[in-house]
Amino acid sequence: MTKNKIRPGPYLFPSLTVLIGANVNGKANFNAIGWVSGLEFGPPLISISSNHQHHNNVGIKENQTFSVNIPTEEMVEITDYCGIKSGRKEDKSEIFDVFYGELKTAPMIKEAAINLECKVIHVVNTSEIANAPNGHDIFIGEVVQAYSDEKYLTRGSPDVDKIKPFVLSQSGGKSKYYKVGEELGTAWSIGSNYKKE
Amino acid sequence: MTKNKIRPGPYLFPSLTVLIGANVNGKANFNAIGWVSGLEFGPPLISISSNHQHHNNVGIKENQTFSVNIPTEEMVEITDYCGIKSGRKEDKSEIFDVFYGELKTAPMIKEAAINLECKVIHVVNTSEIANAPNGHDIFIGEVVQAYSDEKYLTRGSPDVDKIKPFVLSQSGGKSKYYKVGEELGTAWSIGSNYKKE
Repeated sequence: MTKNKIRPGPYLFPSLTVLIGANVNGKANFNAIGWVSGLEFGPPLISISSNHQHHNNVGIKENQTFSVNIPTEEMVEITDYCGIKSGRKEDKSEIFDVFYGELKTAPMIKEAAINLECKVIHVVNTSEIANAPNGHDIFIGEVVQAYSDEKYLTRGSPDVDKIKPFVLSQSGGKSKYYKVGEELGTAWSIGSNYKKE
Repeated sequence: MTKNKIRPGPYLFPSLTVLIGANVNGKANFNAIGWVSGLEFGPPLISISSNHQHHNNVGIKENQTFSVNIPTEEMVEITDYCGIKSGRKEDKSEIFDVFYGELKTAPMIKEAAINLECKVIHVVNTSEIANAPNGHDIFIGEVVQAYSDEKYLTRGSPDVDKIKPFVLSQSGGKSKYYKVGEELGTAWSIGSNYKKE
């Protein structure tokens, strides 16, 4: 294989597509995001990277809370809609059946398969650490409570085959959504078949 | 749908599976990780969350560099092997065809479809921000150079249909690898079909 230099970029796809919920000026708002990551098991921590321009950031900073909602593949259109329309111009507070949990200010989506109710515990601003002109807030949240429906779980844990989430990726110069595909093997297991030469 | 509380956890799957490369005590080492995220486009920033116990962390801290290598689905066994075997006990420096770029200390995998050569610009320790007893280092890296082969690109950009990466997910209480599945639609586009009621 020949290795050529290509334009440096954050080419980490596919990535899970989620809906971030925040209360902005007292009203629920939702935005679609592909830059999310697990960080820690105990306590459970996750991160989202959200552009400074997003309406959500105002509310997340004010309340120090947000939610991560995992949409099913049937929700792909409405999820994309939330990514296209800014909450500054479009009221998205009533497009979902919204509920609140113990933090009181992190709106969650009943139609979504999994909801993570998060308290902000740390923020990194890419404009500060890297002089990004069009910066992002990296919100690190502790998952204080999680919610789901029995139909998405196996022995109490979320099951991807039941949830049918979707991922964002890039192909032919376009960003596209994809289903999760065929199984390839069990993690921390199939590697034992590998034999060093 | 009924919403029940489930055990709080960082349920963000599927997630892309990558191989992180670092020079530890002058020798290339590789570890499999599922907690990765894009953070910023300009400059291109990404994050990885890597357990304090990982051999890689020693080298990343020493050199302030690391690489992210995106394996193809044919590499699923050897990728899992890198996740099972610790570099403390197993020499993984010769299982891949390794090359170095301009940072000199971030070993990259020739067989991988995409390589991101990263310089550490910020570190967050989950033990410090959240008292995590079994903590993780969140390394935020700037992608100073990226590498690929023509066969994985469309008009110079990485193409998921050509790369065939794989994702890590959870089903039936087990962690499993999956292919990327069927296309669902174009992002920032299909949402315009949604009509508010």
